[in-house]
Amino acid sequence: MSVRTKEDVLIAGAVSSWKSAIQRADKFFNGLEESNLYREIAPGRNRSIYLWGHLAAMHDRMLSLLGASPRVHPEFDAVFLTSPDTQAELPSVEILRDWWAEVCQKLDSAIDGFSASDWLDKHTAVSDEDFAKDPLRNRFSILISRTNHLSYHLGQTALVRD
Amino acid sequence: MSVRTKEDVLIAGAVSSWKSAIQRADKFFNGLEESNLYREIAPGRNRSIYLWGHLAAMHDRMLSLLGASPRVHPEFDAVFLTSPDTQAELPSVEILRDWWAEVCQKLDSAIDGFSASDWLDKHTAVSDEDFAKDPLRNRFSILISRTNHLSYHLGQTALVRD
Repeated sequence: MSVRTKEDVLIAGAVSSWKSAIQRADKFFNGLEESNLYREIAPGRNRSIYLWGHLAAMHDRMLSLLGASPRVHPEFDAVFLTSPDTQAELPSVEILRDWWAEVCQKLDSAIDGFSASDWLDKHTAVSDEDFAKDPLRNRFSILISRTNHLSYHLGQTALVRD
Repeated sequence: MSVRTKEDVLIAGAVSSWKSAIQRADKFFNGLEESNLYREIAPGRNRSIYLWGHLAAMHDRMLSLLGASPRVHPEFDAVFLTSPDTQAELPSVEILRDWWAEVCQKLDSAIDGFSASDWLDKHTAVSDEDFAKDPLRNRFSILISRTNHLSYHLGQTALVRD
């Protein structure tokens, strides 16, 4: 094993947890029959396809919060972040699948490239002044909170029966 | 703000995320009407009371994994960790509530007391040899994975209607 700093070991633990949650989500959504994507997670609750878009939109925003890359489909925020699943018109499964894959790939490449200092640096939605007051508003906290958000919805997708 | 090392900032981010998930769980389970605790999260799925016990048992094991304190009710593992929710006899709500509170309090006090070196040290279920090969098998990874496990089940309790 290469010699690593304490920060590197802590960061590697969190990154590993993010990657395993992403793999689990990828396997679930890409493995679900298309007709099942349109079924509700539980009676009267979000459909799987809406949750997929919701996660893609959250992670698309993460690209920008981490300063990783320009966003891919910011126009879908209105469908998946600021509106509930009201059976409104959603993008096709094909568009959703490509969007998810592109966001995953861009995040992966940014995450693998960040140094410990990058993780400890502020995310893009906080000002220098506010960051000086609260150094926890860093990229690492975004990673931790988005991993938990993803786990939260994975708990819901686990209720789906094929 | 007091001067903190890089490790301390990373650890504080993960601890803050754990504490906010615990608060959310505490509010949900302690706030649910007793009769609703016995309702299923979704048709044919675990009851809320089973999830509460499952989380209490996982966190009770965490006391031992972190080397924080002796376990409180290891005898409930058989009910909540190694058996599904088969409508078998569960401890009373009163016992469950006290158990949850005691485990939360003991974890809280251990977590607040750990130094960065403690977090980077191995958890109790890994041997010195295996830890030398994989330094990610540390206390910090337990904290991260248990926060995600908790978030996973919080996603399910969010589907419950009062």
